[in-house]
Amino acid sequence: MDLALDQARAAGERGEVPIGAVLVIDGTVIAASGNRTREVNDVTAHAEVAVIRKACEELGQERLTGADLYVTLEPCTMCAAAISFARIRRLYYGAEDPKGGAVDNGVRFYAQPTCHHAPEVYSGLQETTSADILRTFFQQKRDVP
Amino acid sequence: MDLALDQARAAGERGEVPIGAVLVIDGTVIAASGNRTREVNDVTAHAEVAVIRKACEELGQERLTGADLYVTLEPCTMCAAAISFARIRRLYYGAEDPKGGAVDNGVRFYAQPTCHHAPEVYSGLQETTSADILRTFFQQKRDVP
Repeated sequence: MDLALDQARAAGERGEVPIGAVLVIDGTVIAASGNRTREVNDVTAHAEVAVIRKACEELGQERLTGADLYVTLEPCTMCAAAISFARIRRLYYGAEDPKGGAVDNGVRFYAQPTCHHAPEVYSGLQETTSADILRTFFQQKRDVP
Repeated sequence: MDLALDQARAAGERGEVPIGAVLVIDGTVIAASGNRTREVNDVTAHAEVAVIRKACEELGQERLTGADLYVTLEPCTMCAAAISFARIRRLYYGAEDPKGGAVDNGVRFYAQPTCHHAPEVYSGLQETTSADILRTFFQQKRDVP
């Protein structure tokens, strides 16, 4: 989760909404990324989707069975579904996102009949730090005229 | 929708689940793609996400305000959310997908409070042809020993 937080901070320094994710298989980091939507002009390049794509490319496979994903914020609806499709084993996330989350808020995708694979979910990992990074980022944006 | 069906058929010929999508702005086709998950080893490369990425790259922008998306099957949860994030204006789709859809089935994302932009939705466009392409593909897969 420390690596994911580093990725979040680095994303914020690039002017992206500061969210970070790290994908691990058997204790080895396979991919790490922050949110990259602005950098690559791709609205789907959230941190989770970015690491899933990197890992699929790295491993030459479509599914990431046995992988664990660490992300600083509760995944949104798009990312929650991508995590399911990739067959990720465990999802660890930091802060909850009542406005956009889809795991313990919103559509609660993993509890739905149209979800065909649900990861084990562990929430609240370093949630204060995760939330502080986001809060500081938006506060600074508001302060800039 | 004919172009989207062509993309679906071409995807099937490449061994992909045959779903196709086309993105149009002001009557001009900006991007067209079939499902590409196998070709590029990317579980997120559904037809809808593929055309959104292509269009964002083509236009150099993150949002596709004013764009209309034609897709042969009801979008899944990941794609429904990506369509929302991209601010797509109208979504036209072919067949419904009770098992995996997220527009008129499943999480019905556009009716949820965590959805912050909903496209206008038009369904049932050439739904029989769309469904037949999928049915034939899976039938042939079952027939091959």
